[in-house]
Amino acid sequence: MLVHHLYSGGKDSSLSAWILTRLGYEVRLVTVSFGLLDNWSFARETAERLGFEHQVVYLPREILERAADMAIKDGHPNNAIQFIHERALEAVASMPEVERVSDGTRRDDRVPFLDLPKARSLEDRFNVAYIRPLLGLGYKTIRELTERLFVVEIRESEELEKADYEVELRHLLRERGIDPLEIFPKRHYQSRVLGWREKGI
Amino acid sequence: MLVHHLYSGGKDSSLSAWILTRLGYEVRLVTVSFGLLDNWSFARETAERLGFEHQVVYLPREILERAADMAIKDGHPNNAIQFIHERALEAVASMPEVERVSDGTRRDDRVPFLDLPKARSLEDRFNVAYIRPLLGLGYKTIRELTERLFVVEIRESEELEKADYEVELRHLLRERGIDPLEIFPKRHYQSRVLGWREKGI
Repeated sequence: MLVHHLYSGGKDSSLSAWILTRLGYEVRLVTVSFGLLDNWSFARETAERLGFEHQVVYLPREILERAADMAIKDGHPNNAIQFIHERALEAVASMPEVERVSDGTRRDDRVPFLDLPKARSLEDRFNVAYIRPLLGLGYKTIRELTERLFVVEIRESEELEKADYEVELRHLLRERGIDPLEIFPKRHYQSRVLGWREKGI
Repeated sequence: MLVHHLYSGGKDSSLSAWILTRLGYEVRLVTVSFGLLDNWSFARETAERLGFEHQVVYLPREILERAADMAIKDGHPNNAIQFIHERALEAVASMPEVERVSDGTRRDDRVPFLDLPKARSLEDRFNVAYIRPLLGLGYKTIRELTERLFVVEIRESEELEKADYEVELRHLLRERGIDPLEIFPKRHYQSRVLGWREKGI
């Protein structure tokens, strides 16, 4: 029972990966990249520290360009992040060996988030199971599990060495001469997992 | 980390209980009863076969009476089941020793189901964490886990020896001279877990 799990190296996607192993799944972590930066390597480093297999899936740069257009037009990144996440899920789900895709989205997330029709559509179009281990957990539960399991580093997004979509999106905005701080929230803390606190797998 | 988990003896609530143990929680199964029937004993029997602690929480009969009124007025049981489930969660969440409540509701369920504002309201009003281990799983995933873990008996609702709200609600409708088959769907298959297939805890 192999599952391909979208992975940023953050605590939500790390906790989800751990839950999948506890349910008996063999977990392959997948980080998407648009090839602008090699920040996927932070996810790989965390994956290795945690003992997971890891692969990088490259998405066409056009997707990031279009996401940047959306972020500029909207003046905030929500639709852009949602757009990238949907394309990332589709890219992984369409790989021939993939039967199950997973991510670390939470009950309390606004974006990225697939509502029920979109979740079912993903499953139906690509004949996969879509698993979201954190969807039924609130922030208290996620916090108590994360604190038990992981050593976590928390910093502001601009500073953090991380492998989520934001980093390349901010980079592309800068390339276009736009200050990401005009689009992204000013104080936006992000997490990166550094290793196990309590050996989890 | 003790969690009180609403339990019917069916496969969804059994699978959820197993997931909670896999996440490191100590699980106490709770079956609600209105005191009309002793069908909670089917849940207890399954709980014992699976090796879980089990307790019965009695709810006021007025709740079932009001649910019956709703079912009769609506001509279908959805609002009634939703109403009972919300009262059951509140009753368990309000018990002084309870810090975490859980249930086996699924992503694809229409009822019973707490939307995000209701889930947060439950957590805030009673200062508990509300955990739904199946919320992020689709039917394929639930099926593959259930088939691996449990020996399951599937029958039509009218026949099944089970401990969910429906049984006492149907009984009360019959007491009022109403045929439950006029209100509940005609072919409504329900499951009851008989034991472990693969030893899970």
